[in-house]
This record gives sequence, C-alpha cells and structure tokens, in this order.
Amino acid sequence: MNERTGETATGASLTPIEYADASPEVRAIYDDIMASRNTDWINNFWKYLAQDPHNLRRIWSDLKEVMGAGTLDPLTKELIYVAVSITNGCRYCIASHGASARAKGMTAEQHGELLAIVGLANQTNRLAVALDVPVDDRFR
Amino acid sequence: MNERTGETATGASLTPIEYADASPEVRAIYDDIMASRNTDWINNFWKYLAQDPHNLRRIWSDLKEVMGAGTLDPLTKELIYVAVSITNGCRYCIASHGASARAKGMTAEQHGELLAIVGLANQTNRLAVALDVPVDDRFR
Amino acid sequence: MNERTGETATGASLTPIEYADASPEVRAIYDDIMASRNTDWINNFWKYLAQDPHNLRRIWSDLKEVMGAGTLDPLTKELIYVAVSITNGCRYCIASHGASARAKGMTAEQHGELLAIVGLANQTNRLAVALDVPVDDRFR
Amino acid sequence: MNERTGETATGASLTPIEYADASPEVRAIYDDIMASRNTDWINNFWKYLAQDPHNLRRIWSDLKEVMGAGTLDPLTKELIYVAVSITNGCRYCIASHGASARAKGMTAEQHGELLAIVGLANQTNRLAVALDVPVDDRFR
Amino acid sequence: MNERTGETATGASLTPIEYADASPEVRAIYDDIMASRNTDWINNFWKYLAQDPHNLRRIWSDLKEVMGAGTLDPLTKELIYVAVSITNGCRYCIASHGASARAKGMTAEQHGELLAIVGLANQTNRLAVALDVPVDDRFR
Amino acid sequence: MNERTGETATGASLTPIEYADASPEVRAIYDDIMASRNTDWINNFWKYLAQDPHNLRRIWSDLKEVMGAGTLDPLTKELIYVAVSITNGCRYCIASHGASARAKGMTAEQHGELLAIVGLANQTNRLAVALDVPVDDRFR
Repeated sequence: MNERTGETATGASLTPIEYADASPEVRAIYDDIMASRNTDWINNFWKYLAQDPHNLRRIWSDLKEVMGAGTLDPLTKELIYVAVSITNGCRYCIASHGASARAKGMTAEQHGELLAIVGLANQTNRLAVALDVPVDDRFR
Repeated sequence: MNERTGETATGASLTPIEYADASPEVRAIYDDIMASRNTDWINNFWKYLAQDPHNLRRIWSDLKEVMGAGTLDPLTKELIYVAVSITNGCRYCIASHGASARAKGMTAEQHGELLAIVGLANQTNRLAVALDVPVDDRFR
Repeated sequence: MNERTGETATGASLTPIEYADASPEVRAIYDDIMASRNTDWINNFWKYLAQDPHNLRRIWSDLKEVMGAGTLDPLTKELIYVAVSITNGCRYCIASHGASARAKGMTAEQHGELLAIVGLANQTNRLAVALDVPVDDRFR
Repeated sequence: MNERTGETATGASLTPIEYADASPEVRAIYDDIMASRNTDWINNFWKYLAQDPHNLRRIWSDLKEVMGAGTLDPLTKELIYVAVSITNGCRYCIASHGASARAKGMTAEQHGELLAIVGLANQTNRLAVALDVPVDDRFR
Repeated sequence: MNERTGETATGASLTPIEYADASPEVRAIYDDIMASRNTDWINNFWKYLAQDPHNLRRIWSDLKEVMGAGTLDPLTKELIYVAVSITNGCRYCIASHGASARAKGMTAEQHGELLAIVGLANQTNRLAVALDVPVDDRFR
Repeated sequence: MNERTGETATGASLTPIEYADASPEVRAIYDDIMASRNTDWINNFWKYLAQDPHNLRRIWSDLKEVMGAGTLDPLTKELIYVAVSITNGCRYCIASHGASARAKGMTAEQHGELLAIVGLANQTNRLAVALDVPVDDRFR
C-alpha cells in the first residue's frame, strides 16, 4: 500500500489526504478553504474528497459560491443545508452543518423548531403522495 | 358509492371532502384553517386528508403549532419546508409550500439560492456517505 | 419501429407487451399471474416489465413467493407493501397495492390508520437520525 | 457547558434529558410514556427529543394516538412502522420498533416475511418508476 | 406577469427561458450546450434552470466536466446516471438520461439488465440495513 | 437463547448463521456462493440473511442471475450497484460492492468519476423535480 495515499493494489484510495501529504494543487484548495472560513484546520469531508482532486476542486468551488453571500442570510442557508441532510440521513453532514449553523448563531430553540419542521414536512410529504393530491390551480 | 364520501364498496374513500359535504367536526377544522390563514378557501391537501377526520385534526394541529410563531421567521420556516419537499420529490408539496413561500415574500433570487443549496446538499450528502467520512471531534 | 415490441432504432422498448403480442414464454407467465390471482387481466406493471422476459419471470416468481401463504396474513402483507410504496413515492405502486389491499378487505378506517402510521414513522425516523440517538442496550 | 442540559456556548443541546434532570413538564410526559407502556424506563429517543419540550409533547401525543387502539391490531401497526424505518434506513428506529414488534408477538418467521416484503417492495417501486408505468383504469 | 420571464407578482419565475428570450449570458451557455452535444436544441431542464443564470452556469459547467472524457466510457457514465435517477424517482431525469443512454448505444438488453441491477440493489440495500450487518474486516 | 441461531425468547434471530452452525440447506447455498465467487469465505450479508433460509435462497438466486454474465460487463454492473448503494446510504453495501468493484478492476480514477456522477445526479434529480420540468417530446 502506498503510505501517503492509502492506495491499495486494487487502485482505490480510502484514506484522507492530510495537508502535509497533499499535492500543491490540493494544498492550494485547502488554503482557500481555510482562508474563506478564517480557520486553521480542514474538516474530514474535504480530506476524503481530496482523493480525487478534480472532485475536491469542483465541489469546493460550488460550495463557496452557493453558501457565499446572497439574498438569503448565512444562517438561513445553513438551516436549509441541515434540513436536507437530516432528510437524507447523512450523519456526517448533520454534524458538520449543525456545527456550522451553531457557529452562525443557531440557538437551541431554533434547532428545536428546525427539527419540528423537518419532521412534519417528511410526514406531510408522504401523506400528499399517498392521497395522490392534485395540485390546486391557485398554486400553478 | 356513497356520494358524500366517495366510499367504494371496498371501503376506501378516494375523494376530497368538500366544505358543503363535511361533517360538523371537519367543518370546524376547515374554519380554523381559513381563519388562521385569513383565506376563504381550503387547499386540496386538507380536503383529501379529511377522509380520516382524526388525521385531519392531528396534522392541522401539528402544522399550526410548528409553522406558527417561533424564533425562526415565517419565510425561513417555509423555505425549510420547501427544501425537504424537494428532497423527497413531493410535487404537491413543492407547489403548495412554494406558493406559501412566495406569499411570505420569497423573491426569485431567493428561490434560485434555495434550489442551489438543496441541489448541492443532496450531492454532498451522498459524497460524505460514499467516502464514509468520520465525524470530526470538533463537531461533536 | 417494431410494431410488436415498440423497439426503437436505438434498441430500447418502451411499450407494454400485450398478451396477443407476447412470446410463448411471456404468455405462460401471464397465464400464471392470472391463475394465481383468479383474474382475467394483466395489470400494466407486468406488461411493461415484460419488455425483458428475464425480469418478468424473476420478479413474478419472487412476488408469488413473498406475497403467498405465510405466517403474516394476506392483508397485513399488502399493508406493508403499501407503506413502503408511500414512503418511496411510487404512484403506480400506491394505486395498485392500494387496490389489492382493498380487495383483501382493507376498510376506510384501516386505510386512515395506515396513513397515520406511515406519516408519523417518516417523521420520527428523521428525528432519531437528526438527534443521533444511540441504540438503547435493551434493544440489542 | 451547562451540566444539566449539555448546552454549549453556541446554544445547542446535544445530550439526553434524564428523568432526574427533567423539568416538571418533561417529567409528566415521561410518566405518561411509562404508564402507557407499563414500563419503568424511558428509551433514548424521548430523552434526546426532550431537548425541546414542545417537540417531546407533540410527538408523544401523536404516537400515543396513532399507535393506540384502532382497527389495525398492535402488532400490525408495529410491523408497518418497522417497514417504513427499514426503507428510510433509520438504525435507531429499526432497533426500537423491532424490539417493540417482538414484544407484541412478532416471531422469527414473521420477521423474515416482513424483510422479504420490504425488500421486494423497494425493488418493484423502482421498477415501476423506471418503466413509467401508467396507472390502470381499474385501480382508480 | 412579465411575459418574457413568467415572473409573477410574488417574484418567482416558473417558466422556461427560451433561446429567443434569453439574456446574452444565458444564450452563451445554451450555445455551449448545443456545441458540446452537437445538437440544435435545448432540452427543458436547462430552460427551466435558466430562471437563475448562476445555477445554469454552475450546473452546466459541472455536468460538462463530470460527463466528459474520463476513464469510464460515455455509455457507462450514462448508465450510472440513469441508475441514480431511477433510485430517486425523478421522472424527467429517467426520460432524458435514458434517451441519452440510448443515443450512446444502450441496447434493449442492456436496459433490461440495468433495471435488474437497480431493482435488486434497492432491495439488498434495505435488507443489509434491516439486519444491521457489520462491515466485514476484509472490506475495509 | 438458542445458541445456534441466536433466537431470543421473543422469537427473533439477530445473529449471523456461521457455516459450522448452518442447516444442510443453508450450507448448500453457502457452498454455491463460494463456488460462484471462487472464494473460501462467506461475507456477513449472507450470514445474517440466512436467519430466514427462504430469503437467503431467493436473494442469492436473484443476485447470481442479475450479476452474472450479460451484455453489460461485470465491472459496469458493479459500478451501477455501488451507485445505487451510495444513493440509498447503505454503508455495508457501499463497502462490500466497492470491494467487489475494486476486485473487478475499478481504479482510483474510476472511483472518483463514479462519485462525481452519483453526486451530480443526486443534485440534478432534485433540481428537475423542484422545477417540475416537463418531459421533452423528443425523449418519449
């Protein structure tokens, strides 16, 4: 096994790429992540994604743009991200975006309200489908 | 077939309960929905759900509480609802809650940003799971 | 286009295989479906699946075994099938298995209770994941 | 960190609320759960949900109503709950509702049949969607 | 309503952006799509996405990169795309990527095999989760 | 507890069936799995599924047929399986089918491209649904 990348004989890399082991291209992206977030560390998602530098570059570029300045405020954007992550059951994403939401000001009450909405929406989504409810003309 | 409820010989009701045909209990709930929303009509979801008055009562009670006053503002609550509905692919819900969001002030730019976040989150959720990324200690 | 199978120049068949147009192998399976169900018609799912006779044979064999006699009664089996179909949002399946459930005795009240459980389970499933609830020792 | 609630500086509570630490309101709900189930302990789901007492109250009220007496027998209701939980991949829910189903009489054979139906339904749900099967007139 | 964009008083644009009505920026992206695909038309997905030019630009850029030349051949890439679309139940995507796969050489037999795998995987995915199967050491 | 099957007083078997403890019927299936794969061990999925020998027999028969020789090559079949497993978030399946794909020749680059497609498809699937994009006539 290649000690640096964890690449097995079958060709797949299953380990995170640490800053110290990263290529110049990957390091540049790590630097941009840290600069954008004003932090001094890289969370695991990026280090695992970096196994394929094309994916790392593209996804970071997308996230920076989508979660950057816009008409929706940063906390709202993060709440939406958490809501989707809960619905999809991504444990890592719930933890990382939950931490991000708290860092952006989410209080315990807001978290409780978010859970309430996500839970209820997952319920009514199924009921509407089960009952094959036709879309009201007024909603078109 | 029972004309009022649409109940077939097999016992299932597959039609909406119109106000004019509703029992006093169901009408009371319809009245509360209209009063709470300051409208004069009932959207299809409730009319189909009303086939089982217990479900209608319970779900309306839940929705009124969850989407009512809280620490999250009404538009943010609606955006979260739309985000979940898109993720679950509920066409009716996307239409009804989308209309609700627009009524609460969602602009075209905000809608575009919402779509961007929901799309990206659905992508990164799968990537995190695919790479079996361990939760960072800092997020616990 | 091949009139019998609907096969286009690109090689994909996108139309149902009617009994009159079916190969002897497919007809034999259609006959078994009708004999098992004591009906004289084939619902659309099988006619579309028949585009690939291997799939038709294998899936019908599986369904006959799984939905056949067992320790769970036929209606309970159908209720479970509907519950999964609602959760997955398969409109065709909700309709066909709903009809099957009604044919096996599902009443309007039972249908309402089924919806209530499916809706609530979809809600609590998300809440448990969102809160990263650890499995109680007593449940292992 | 607030020792009793686990609330961090960012405002989110990520720990379970034990009976001994619960407010009178939460304790009353815990008491009702134990009385309804004739047990002397609270499973983790409720203790984590209790971080937001509104959610605890509402969800327990819903569950008590939905899983209470009805036209579907208790075991059938639990089997439906397990089926949805498996489809959604909620590990906690599969464990807790599986334990509940066993307590209500689910045998090993019934469990195997349940798995068979859930697996097959998840398969045919996708096939019906992939083939864009139109709903038969007879099912409407 | 703004005739060109379909923008309603509430601010949301719900109609496709036709080439003739597109801004120079959007037209440039449409031109690139047609040039890349060697076609003379734009499918609906892009015309609806174009309501938010940022999303159109970013998603087209991603798709061009991801579905472009690589170590996986074009047909395999399309089959994977269809498999995911079926699993998520996106009717539009199944149709558009199915057409794309057929254009890249997918035969009727390959389509049948694809359906077989997608169906079976959706089944075994649930069974593995239901049985809480631990990952074998050999797979790590 | 029955030592051989792990069956608890409540009737559910929650442990894997080891070769040494297996009935002749189950052993025969284990032998066939090992012969088909040219291996000398059984992975956990089959050992847990074996709690219900009917399920083990049926699912192994299906998998052998579906993943056997066809017009799609073995690696492509495995890539599709992984893509679905990622989309459904089945951790066990991602690990086992990922190992299978590597054994069939998947390189690190191909793995990266697979992730890219699965991620992007999960994104565009939601966007198409959110925008309620109508299927183009040319795709029918």
